[in-house]
Amino acid sequence: MNFGINLSFAVKRWPEPAIWARFVRETLKLDRIQFTYDLLDPWSPDAMRRSMAAEVRKAARDWSITIESAFSGLANYCYDGLLHPDPEARRISMEWWKRAVELAAEVGAEASGGPVGAMSVADSGNPARREQLYRNLLDSVAELSRVAAEAGLKRFLVECTPLAREIPYTVAQARKFISDLSGQCQIPVLLLVDVGHALYQPLYGPKANMKEWLTGLGHSIGAFHLQNTDFQSDSHWGWPDSRGLFDVAAFSREVRGAGLEEVPAHLELIYPFELDDDTVRKSIESSVLHCRRTYCGESLS
Amino acid sequence: MNFGINLSFAVKRWPEPAIWARFVRETLKLDRIQFTYDLLDPWSPDAMRRSMAAEVRKAARDWSITIESAFSGLANYCYDGLLHPDPEARRISMEWWKRAVELAAEVGAEASGGPVGAMSVADSGNPARREQLYRNLLDSVAELSRVAAEAGLKRFLVECTPLAREIPYTVAQARKFISDLSGQCQIPVLLLVDVGHALYQPLYGPKANMKEWLTGLGHSIGAFHLQNTDFQSDSHWGWPDSRGLFDVAAFSREVRGAGLEEVPAHLELIYPFELDDDTVRKSIESSVLHCRRTYCGESLS
Repeated sequence: MNFGINLSFAVKRWPEPAIWARFVRETLKLDRIQFTYDLLDPWSPDAMRRSMAAEVRKAARDWSITIESAFSGLANYCYDGLLHPDPEARRISMEWWKRAVELAAEVGAEASGGPVGAMSVADSGNPARREQLYRNLLDSVAELSRVAAEAGLKRFLVECTPLAREIPYTVAQARKFISDLSGQCQIPVLLLVDVGHALYQPLYGPKANMKEWLTGLGHSIGAFHLQNTDFQSDSHWGWPDSRGLFDVAAFSREVRGAGLEEVPAHLELIYPFELDDDTVRKSIESSVLHCRRTYCGESLS
Repeated sequence: MNFGINLSFAVKRWPEPAIWARFVRETLKLDRIQFTYDLLDPWSPDAMRRSMAAEVRKAARDWSITIESAFSGLANYCYDGLLHPDPEARRISMEWWKRAVELAAEVGAEASGGPVGAMSVADSGNPARREQLYRNLLDSVAELSRVAAEAGLKRFLVECTPLAREIPYTVAQARKFISDLSGQCQIPVLLLVDVGHALYQPLYGPKANMKEWLTGLGHSIGAFHLQNTDFQSDSHWGWPDSRGLFDVAAFSREVRGAGLEEVPAHLELIYPFELDDDTVRKSIESSVLHCRRTYCGESLS
């Protein structure tokens, strides 16, 4: 199995590349990560961004860590992005993404990506606007694939999210999205499936299951996010957590059954900013151990 | 009482200025707001930012809404900002804040502000680094007060947060912060006190109470954030909420007792992105009604 961790765990607490890199390798015993733009905003003026990106790249090299991809975090997810009702705001988001793609290359990642946009409530209720914004999004992602190819990236990842105002949010919509992009992109555009998004019951109902996502999307899946969840929120909890219900071992069997064991799976933990640092550190460590045992099948004492 | 709402409620759902402005005035029956940078990122390239800021200003004018201040939201709070361990990152944050201050003026706000930074775990545990970063922060805020004065703003607001790695986080530290800035700033630098931050028991203990904050900080308080909370998290819930314990009527009496009834108090509601829009809309409406009754003392049917 291909298991790594998203650096969301380091945000605000351990932002120093030399510190998170050492923690990933020595404490968590992992050698692959997903970088998060919550640690370095792609908007940062070029010279400063490049200098900080070089530190990230160096730390990863010093500790023999592969940065599989650089990914949107909470900060960029606060905006409507490429589906904003205002064309100016969509242009702003394109500019952000072009910088994000460059930054991914600068830190030495092979891929970039994230959730790409949300419609306003007003637009979402208007079928003609939905269609227009969808077409626009296809063009934007195709253009980003060209920018990413120029920057030297190998793939672009679009995250499926549990909101009907976002694209893509269902198996059927994700299939159509990938199919509509076919032949338009300069590098492969693949999907990132977050298990906590895919199983969010208030939207998908109590029968939501990972098998449908895995068999429905197959090799269009370019990466996974792992999290513990109660299926009633986009929880991003770790293990153990008395509220959490996600069965990692069962998911591991399903991934192997679908022949997707080589797809990178990143644990994405998001703690309240105010939670004390020791509690967070212990939760990160126990969560990684849990996933190494149950997702990767390692026998650990 | 001086009661308004932070536009956090509109983020991603109702980003169109004409829509949130009408909702604020017609549905919520409020005439003052705090704009959030989660609706328009200060990093946005100048021409696009100015065009979008003009729409905000126009909507506020069309609906006779006063924009008291423009304030940091979740996106900027994801970064360590002016207390980041890397001097490059602190320069990046200063650049963000200069743009934020300009944007505040562009939307027609009188003030700007937000939480200003977080130390890394490593720096926070090192007394010499803490002191150095604190001195540095004082200089940065003093410089921002000059930028804000040039932009035509009347005050700069620094938010107190419930993290010992951030500044300021206690009554004593906030008093010292304001006192250390005395004579250094070109416009008043005041504190924003969020009731859910101030009463966070895991940090401040079970005896935390608003009276201490109000009498300790007095007229150094430039604004409040209201939220419902269980005192165990930075909750930002509304009313009614079966988990919430915050007594708005008691707070209203304390604010009047401290002679601070003219200080702007903004309701700051933060819902999970994935929560359905109708539930959110109802919660916003009932929360505003609750605060108008219990904070402002309006008799509403």
